[in-house]
Amino acid sequence: MSKEARIKEGDDILIFIDKKRKILTRAERGKLHTHKGYFDLGEVIGKRFGNRIVSNKGYIAYILKPTLLDYYKKFSRRTQIMYHKDLSYAIVWLGISSGSRILEGGTGSGAATAFLANIVKPSGRVVTYDVNKRSLEIAEENLRRCGLHKYVTLKLGSIYEPIEEESFDAALVDVPEPWLTFSTLENSLKDSARIVFFTPTINQVERIVNKAEDRDILIVDTVEIIERSIRVKEGMTRPETVMIGHTGYLTLAVKVKKDK
Amino acid sequence: MSKEARIKEGDDILIFIDKKRKILTRAERGKLHTHKGYFDLGEVIGKRFGNRIVSNKGYIAYILKPTLLDYYKKFSRRTQIMYHKDLSYAIVWLGISSGSRILEGGTGSGAATAFLANIVKPSGRVVTYDVNKRSLEIAEENLRRCGLHKYVTLKLGSIYEPIEEESFDAALVDVPEPWLTFSTLENSLKDSARIVFFTPTINQVERIVNKAEDRDILIVDTVEIIERSIRVKEGMTRPETVMIGHTGYLTLAVKVKKDK
Amino acid sequence: MSKEARIKEGDDILIFIDKKRKILTRAERGKLHTHKGYFDLGEVIGKRFGNRIVSNKGYIAYILKPTLLDYYKKFSRRTQIMYHKDLSYAIVWLGISSGSRILEGGTGSGAATAFLANIVKPSGRVVTYDVNKRSLEIAEENLRRCGLHKYVTLKLGSIYEPIEEESFDAALVDVPEPWLTFSTLENSLKDSARIVFFTPTINQVERIVNKAEDRDILIVDTVEIIERSIRVKEGMTRPETVMIGHTGYLTLAVKVKKDK
Amino acid sequence: MSKEARIKEGDDILIFIDKKRKILTRAERGKLHTHKGYFDLGEVIGKRFGNRIVSNKGYIAYILKPTLLDYYKKFSRRTQIMYHKDLSYAIVWLGISSGSRILEGGTGSGAATAFLANIVKPSGRVVTYDVNKRSLEIAEENLRRCGLHKYVTLKLGSIYEPIEEESFDAALVDVPEPWLTFSTLENSLKDSARIVFFTPTINQVERIVNKAEDRDILIVDTVEIIERSIRVKEGMTRPETVMIGHTGYLTLAVKVKKDK
Repeated sequence: MSKEARIKEGDDILIFIDKKRKILTRAERGKLHTHKGYFDLGEVIGKRFGNRIVSNKGYIAYILKPTLLDYYKKFSRRTQIMYHKDLSYAIVWLGISSGSRILEGGTGSGAATAFLANIVKPSGRVVTYDVNKRSLEIAEENLRRCGLHKYVTLKLGSIYEPIEEESFDAALVDVPEPWLTFSTLENSLKDSARIVFFTPTINQVERIVNKAEDRDILIVDTVEIIERSIRVKEGMTRPETVMIGHTGYLTLAVKVKKDK
Repeated sequence: MSKEARIKEGDDILIFIDKKRKILTRAERGKLHTHKGYFDLGEVIGKRFGNRIVSNKGYIAYILKPTLLDYYKKFSRRTQIMYHKDLSYAIVWLGISSGSRILEGGTGSGAATAFLANIVKPSGRVVTYDVNKRSLEIAEENLRRCGLHKYVTLKLGSIYEPIEEESFDAALVDVPEPWLTFSTLENSLKDSARIVFFTPTINQVERIVNKAEDRDILIVDTVEIIERSIRVKEGMTRPETVMIGHTGYLTLAVKVKKDK
Repeated sequence: MSKEARIKEGDDILIFIDKKRKILTRAERGKLHTHKGYFDLGEVIGKRFGNRIVSNKGYIAYILKPTLLDYYKKFSRRTQIMYHKDLSYAIVWLGISSGSRILEGGTGSGAATAFLANIVKPSGRVVTYDVNKRSLEIAEENLRRCGLHKYVTLKLGSIYEPIEEESFDAALVDVPEPWLTFSTLENSLKDSARIVFFTPTINQVERIVNKAEDRDILIVDTVEIIERSIRVKEGMTRPETVMIGHTGYLTLAVKVKKDK
Repeated sequence: MSKEARIKEGDDILIFIDKKRKILTRAERGKLHTHKGYFDLGEVIGKRFGNRIVSNKGYIAYILKPTLLDYYKKFSRRTQIMYHKDLSYAIVWLGISSGSRILEGGTGSGAATAFLANIVKPSGRVVTYDVNKRSLEIAEENLRRCGLHKYVTLKLGSIYEPIEEESFDAALVDVPEPWLTFSTLENSLKDSARIVFFTPTINQVERIVNKAEDRDILIVDTVEIIERSIRVKEGMTRPETVMIGHTGYLTLAVKVKKDK
């Protein structure tokens, strides 16, 4: 049996009631009110992660150690954020790992930033640009909340314009007109660096692909990732009735030298 | 302009002809025969990644630096391997990063093993079990090919039985009867560790979910990830005609303590 | 130019405001209040279908002649009704046309009944059974509303039990335990008649398929039909964000004689 | 028990070996060679539909009465034909039934024509145009094979140009540039007639929608229908591995009068 540390006051905890009700909070004296009654959070201190807690109405919840996905779901946000399904596909395609240096165009709320940082830490770095100052503030706060801010450089500005950094291993681009980032990508990425463009509409995809033709951007593929949740219950198993039908397209590319 | 290293003799290279034709090989004197004519691989030496090469028939290809996905597609295999879409979703759900210790049940050809290792390196470790000695040999060779073997412990045996290692941060389980691994998972994972069960059939999902009910395994969700490739061409854009309809289900779980 | 009849007082009309707001009503003096202001329905009388009408707030709507689908969307219902995508697939698979005689097990709100009747009219017939008297009343009212009741025989009872009718050309079965209808299907359908079983869960599908094995029911296939709506707007085209993820499975079968 | 007619010499029969192997042929003396051995077709005469037949190697097949779908799958074809899933959705959306008069633009191999004719027969009619003489010949032969030619008028020509017929109840348009048919649709359809445009690419959809804006064509929706076949086997149930990823989009419209 593992002899793991007990939960200490102030630790981040995830109160898991069920698949759709998970509350990210801290272990500290006080009541957590839910529609299943209230939980006395003071009780949690000294327990181990994975233990359960019972509400005053007798409902059970589990005290889990939050992963980045749990933080991410609670991120403050001003705009749509990339989904788990899209982000994870992009991360693997980018071929990154601990130590990689990533350029991100379009910080938004810092959701993708956080996942990239989580992969490249501790020795790698994510440099992320956004034209919106408020977005950067929110992103910083979100990154700080999950302890990943130290692996990220947040910059006010657009990658439609030249940037000072160079030699990135990979780039994730989530901006309205991705074709305007081509010069920056050509100048700031390492040779053969992988790029993912995330765009909600098919017209953006078409413009990326068409405009890349005479640029040093080699288009490899465009994919759409669809996630279906299954309601599993003995004798009553079926996919969920309502699902997210579309988030966006991932266009996969590589920085090359076409003219030599 | 970046001043990156030139391609040296013996370097792994990916000859990218088009989306469907990519050849993983080495930079060394000799001809690479393809249906587009042959490429003189000796020419590649001294060039930079991202540069192009021309076949004797005048066709262009790009010399790319292979990422793990490129190695993975060329892995020797005896069995079906997990797809990019499923693997990446699992990796993000497991909440792992550099330094994590992962238990894998069912090494197969080492495909998932490689992706896990790529995330946890250099300080983390993947311990992977398979009952088939030949699979382990193939997996080792595959891992060695992409330089990830040093982050992996390959073990002959089944996680249906108790194992000696403990305190894993997460587990990926891809075996025929995943419910038989519950005791091992309960004993070998850290509290609140995340688990992904990959299974091709819905019946396996049902059994996992039903049998987990009175075990220290909390089921969070079951999802299916579907990938659709889009054929993008000005004025003729449409999803590809034929697609992979199904690979498997991902059942997402957490190790908890239900009785306390 | 066509010289078609004008809209008369009392005619059913569909006021089409936009894709999501369509109102089925009658042409008669009075105001139709909508969130776009009110429309004076008296104005409609004497116009032609397809003409437009303007609300007091200046919004345009079109006066369309309702099709069965428009009636169907307004059907009173006590239970989930089969979707357009599933119903239409079933109708074509059943191989029916004007003059066919159809057995329906599970009338529900009469939605599928109406579509079957619309295909087999005027000389064919749908005989439909439901154990719930209130359902039959609602179905009758729905069928009457769209003028299809005269092609339908509504019967209180279950096709789990023997029925008096025979020689049906095809059957549509939408009941909780479809395998209990096998004897009735064997006795009441013509040789080689086609059958569609509609079931929400995969477990029902499995039981149908397994239990059909030693019965005179030949299973041909099970399919799931998924409908994706596309939001088309110049330069902003993309699938809709939220979609129906699952309604049910269609199991396609034929009545045969296995033992001879 | 039904007292149905026996199979006569010359009757069309469907030899059903399994889900993927169905042979449409005639009941007549001779051997039908298959990979399961040969079947003596003479044996079939005098049997009833639904009865079985055994090959010289002991394999069982069922003798089914073909439905239109069975004929359709054997249609001679020069071009891609509309799929069951798309055709059936369109038929229901068009709101047609026995007696309707339908305009079809783009006969192709007559597949959609046959299904439309099967719905509108015996008193309705399908008028179908194609610019390709060879297509019309093939379509006629296909329609004759399944006895539906008498409900169809095949015309050499394009609905890009004015046509002489008018007052159609509905139209199905499957041509490369559907927006060029708008004038013909405006002049030849009844007020409020429903239209389905079938197009493989999203760009065609965009052009239809954009160009309809100032025409008497009201766009209601664009949908994509996806069909997934399920492999059902006790304890091994899962969707099929390979599926058709895309056939085309259905754009749903109504003929209106926008300016009055």
